[in-house]
Amino acid sequence: MISIRVVLVEPLYEGNVGSVCRSMKNFGFHELVLVRPCKLDNFAKAMASHAQDLLAAARIVDTFEEAVAGANLLVATTGKPGAHFNSHVRYPFYNPRELRAMLENKSGTVALIFGREDYGLPNEIVEKCDLVAFIPTSAEYPIMNMAHAATTFLYELSGFTGGNVALADRKMMGRLYDHFGDLLGEVNYPEHKKDKTLMMLRRIFGRAMLNRREYYTMMGVLHEIGLALERAKKR
Amino acid sequence: MISIRVVLVEPLYEGNVGSVCRSMKNFGFHELVLVRPCKLDNFAKAMASHAQDLLAAARIVDTFEEAVAGANLLVATTGKPGAHFNSHVRYPFYNPRELRAMLENKSGTVALIFGREDYGLPNEIVEKCDLVAFIPTSAEYPIMNMAHAATTFLYELSGFTGGNVALADRKMMGRLYDHFGDLLGEVNYPEHKKDKTLMMLRRIFGRAMLNRREYYTMMGVLHEIGLALERAKKR
Repeated sequence: MISIRVVLVEPLYEGNVGSVCRSMKNFGFHELVLVRPCKLDNFAKAMASHAQDLLAAARIVDTFEEAVAGANLLVATTGKPGAHFNSHVRYPFYNPRELRAMLENKSGTVALIFGREDYGLPNEIVEKCDLVAFIPTSAEYPIMNMAHAATTFLYELSGFTGGNVALADRKMMGRLYDHFGDLLGEVNYPEHKKDKTLMMLRRIFGRAMLNRREYYTMMGVLHEIGLALERAKKR
Repeated sequence: MISIRVVLVEPLYEGNVGSVCRSMKNFGFHELVLVRPCKLDNFAKAMASHAQDLLAAARIVDTFEEAVAGANLLVATTGKPGAHFNSHVRYPFYNPRELRAMLENKSGTVALIFGREDYGLPNEIVEKCDLVAFIPTSAEYPIMNMAHAATTFLYELSGFTGGNVALADRKMMGRLYDHFGDLLGEVNYPEHKKDKTLMMLRRIFGRAMLNRREYYTMMGVLHEIGLALERAKKR
């Protein structure tokens, strides 16, 4: 089973927050987390309409880390995807239909993350995410209203149950990336390439969506490589 | 080629009208017609954001007939579809994905019609449409914000070009339904069933989306039936 958590990072307009609540309830979603939101007052309630219960139940947190705690897969939504395969932070990216297809047989909590209305999600947050998602829009006016973008993703994911391949949890994946980082250090990988390569590894494993077994096997492989390096150095 | 015209019937809130403009431009659509809209002022412009050109170019008309003039296919969107195959006005209905698939090889102008925020499209208008479309939503809160519903349809139809099977025009289809009505009269079809049967015929031919050749052949068939009836009565 896939469960969807909607995360809004620093929303600026209360109307949009209410509007997202309405769409969530329309499409059968209930878990909303707000990171440092604007003041939520009467207009948020008006736009939430019959989804005011969802607005009232939204979890409000101070940090992105709190918002995504416990989620298995972090999906950064953006109106500005990467333009080139060499810019790993926002590339590759997937449209809502592709995202749905990728989650088809999976099980876990997916955080769908939307940035603030003026400049979207900053790179510091996109870098922490596993996948980048983008709604194909007209070059004439590519930037969507945040509630419209959320509506589009929620429409695509509504009625979607996923499968039973349990996704590895975020702590596991964090250890895997740390391990990779250590390994690059041990093999004297050029320092100026390290961050970019680690970002690329995160994009590869992010879209591959490892299950727990694959995680343990990958960790085993890295461990064996580490041991072999140590043995070789001792000789 | 399919071209999409968005028709809003008596929108009540200017913010929604602006919001629809933004989504239209985001997804590459430009033709908007408003039937007896609310006053369009600063908030409509704010919500249209960089799509104020589209708002300014919207055609404002007094009647539904003017709004759909020249369109080949009228699609009524509704949050309240028919519950039973026996209620032909709002049944059968198609979701946005199905609508897209049905238009795959077609050519013509499709009017996507949205009703007012408080009670949607009235039956008098739905009856005049060829197809009914419905976004599957949660039973807990099925009624979407009008701009969100438009966004969902426009997302599904964006980048869609259609094919080259030219749809018959509305005047043709009107003549076909008139001819059917006359024929039912000539065969003494029970008066109390007539309207319902004509509605059903409209739903069948609406989803079948006749091309011009099929229209002429159908008219020929009805004509021959009429002549045969005349001959038989003279005997």
